[in-house]
Amino acid sequence: MLVVKKFGGSSVADPERIKRVARRVVEEHQKGNQVVVTVSAMGDTTDDLVSLAKQVTNDPSEREMDMLLSTGEQISIALLSMAIRDLGSDVISLTGGQVGIYTDDVHSKAKILKIETSRVKEELEQGRVVVVAGFQGIKSNHDITTLGRGGSDTTAVALAAALKADICEIFTDVDGVYTTDPRLVPEASKLKNISFDEMLELASLGAQVLHPRSVELAKQYGIPIHVRTSFDHREGTIVEEAPNMENAPVVSGVAHDYNVAKIGLFDVPDQPGVAKKIFKALSKHNLNVDMIIQSAMRNNMNDIGFTTTQDDLRKALQTIEAIQQEVGFRGYNHDEDVAKVSIVGAGMISHPGVAADMFEALADEGINLEMITTSEIKVSCVIKRSETEKAVKALHKKFKLDNLAEASIYNR
Amino acid sequence: MLVVKKFGGSSVADPERIKRVARRVVEEHQKGNQVVVTVSAMGDTTDDLVSLAKQVTNDPSEREMDMLLSTGEQISIALLSMAIRDLGSDVISLTGGQVGIYTDDVHSKAKILKIETSRVKEELEQGRVVVVAGFQGIKSNHDITTLGRGGSDTTAVALAAALKADICEIFTDVDGVYTTDPRLVPEASKLKNISFDEMLELASLGAQVLHPRSVELAKQYGIPIHVRTSFDHREGTIVEEAPNMENAPVVSGVAHDYNVAKIGLFDVPDQPGVAKKIFKALSKHNLNVDMIIQSAMRNNMNDIGFTTTQDDLRKALQTIEAIQQEVGFRGYNHDEDVAKVSIVGAGMISHPGVAADMFEALADEGINLEMITTSEIKVSCVIKRSETEKAVKALHKKFKLDNLAEASIYNR
Repeated sequence: MLVVKKFGGSSVADPERIKRVARRVVEEHQKGNQVVVTVSAMGDTTDDLVSLAKQVTNDPSEREMDMLLSTGEQISIALLSMAIRDLGSDVISLTGGQVGIYTDDVHSKAKILKIETSRVKEELEQGRVVVVAGFQGIKSNHDITTLGRGGSDTTAVALAAALKADICEIFTDVDGVYTTDPRLVPEASKLKNISFDEMLELASLGAQVLHPRSVELAKQYGIPIHVRTSFDHREGTIVEEAPNMENAPVVSGVAHDYNVAKIGLFDVPDQPGVAKKIFKALSKHNLNVDMIIQSAMRNNMNDIGFTTTQDDLRKALQTIEAIQQEVGFRGYNHDEDVAKVSIVGAGMISHPGVAADMFEALADEGINLEMITTSEIKVSCVIKRSETEKAVKALHKKFKLDNLAEASIYNR
Repeated sequence: MLVVKKFGGSSVADPERIKRVARRVVEEHQKGNQVVVTVSAMGDTTDDLVSLAKQVTNDPSEREMDMLLSTGEQISIALLSMAIRDLGSDVISLTGGQVGIYTDDVHSKAKILKIETSRVKEELEQGRVVVVAGFQGIKSNHDITTLGRGGSDTTAVALAAALKADICEIFTDVDGVYTTDPRLVPEASKLKNISFDEMLELASLGAQVLHPRSVELAKQYGIPIHVRTSFDHREGTIVEEAPNMENAPVVSGVAHDYNVAKIGLFDVPDQPGVAKKIFKALSKHNLNVDMIIQSAMRNNMNDIGFTTTQDDLRKALQTIEAIQQEVGFRGYNHDEDVAKVSIVGAGMISHPGVAADMFEALADEGINLEMITTSEIKVSCVIKRSETEKAVKALHKKFKLDNLAEASIYNR
């Protein structure tokens, strides 16, 4: 069996933890499996490097930033390889460049284009554990790039896909994917399985376990991901192609996201091409727009509302102001005091009335809905920020997710 | 003009110093010169990384150690490039691998075999300052190697040679090469020029300014080295091909070395091949042997004495013990309480009696000579450790090196 294992920064934060990860890797290797490991930078290394850069310049070039930050993972792979060798397994560390992880030219948020597998395969055939630096690749001219947020998860899944691994294990400080955030709802239940699509919705909606990029990639190549804790040997959650849609739970999780801001435009002329003008302008500035809602027309005028992240709000408002004249809307406002709650479930598609159940649960708590969007496997509502916890708890209870025994979610 | 500048770890120890180095580099670039900069790791970075490795394993693989340590220089080049760009010069950083600094396969003390110049030249032609990581290269399979002691100086000189630079400037925390260690002899004089050969002898003899490897390389390719301080703009010392041997000073410097231990073998059979057996055994264990002295034969038996470094002493004694039976000498002893003092001067060759002057100066101070060796441009004596300072002062005075005005050493 070929296993790709990924350990995050907190799992390799100090020499003791690195040794613990090494023990875990060597156990797998001594079972006779082929093992590829990818790691992030140790604990706060990346933050420390960013702070050094800030002391040198206010405006670091992204190329040099990638040159700087990629050292964090290089340190981790060297140390982890030493620890693995110390326990008796033959091992080799490889940087992204040495593996041949080729990316596009976008420094600080590069996308993987191709992974050369010859060097890794050669080392695996020699019986070695291969430790690969996460988060990094190279451009065609061999300049170092980094993959941006969720980069190490993406490296792991991309390696698993390129090597046709049997499974990609992502080790985190939580023990799996839960029906909702256990810090908010103590009754949250751990899921034994979840489909790629549900995980994608949950990941995008603010469940911090896996980055959506890595889930998309895993779905595309059909690589199952096992999300589990690095602290003990308990099984976590398998993210995989849904084996049987009919059997899927109606609602498998409740997500919430505080990083949301709402912008409303009033009296937008009801003409073709108006929405295009607005959202092209926003995308030109790389501003993420999530929900978009257009209200019913009155007097040839529309209201258009959309959400963006809190981080992007200032820039989005500047963009809106800049195009107001041209697009010809009367005014705009914004609200940062909001959050988004969502229910996700692959079985929703065959169970009408799920959205109505959601609205009922929220209404029963006296929570006002400011925006609503739906997809085939998700319903999201924007609500007042202060009511988030109450909303999540109510939804979790409504859809009978409290205190489920493992796996029972798929057999209710 | 094409200038290669090298800054050591203490010159880039923190963000403020990095900015100061950047100003210095940008000044040169704005004069219209082409500038290649090579830097070491920041201050204690290398020590910190070594200590991390030691916490993970007692016996780190040298390949992984090189993978680990090479991050130190990578951090420096990224930060220095950011600082240079901040001051308005276009700039690019390159790792040893990105330049194409190819070395042999000996991890932790690799030798440079070849430097590709195309990438560096291309960047220089674009008007960019090129910042290259010192101390590192790659093997033919792209594994990272490090060059060992004096590695960054060697990188700088090798780059200067490959690029046919006009000069290689080595910035240190001293302001040049002195006639002797100014910490020992306050009357020490700074040299304006010194020949490669003299510098080689001084470097090998314990004057810590330049590593002998880099001086050898500079001599081989005829690249003048300017040793100067990074703290101000004063001229330092130019190390170059001696322009006129006739004009060379008889003695240009007095060196001392505390890292010396003496081993004596008694009653070694006077047969062909005996010395070979002894010193082959020592070299097989990579033990550095410096002075070797064989006394006059008596009764078909010789005494053989040699010096090694204090670091190598234990291993050397073990080796000697292991071959005693085979070689057939009666006994051996050792002495760590010694030091070596030397006088160096290219003019010595045409001035007989210099060695006698040296012995006289030491005898006048009542200093006993335990071993003596001579070469064309140097005389070295092993003496009691506690008499080192007295010996150096006496020799410095004897050869009229006290308080010389700059340059006058070449015109006495």
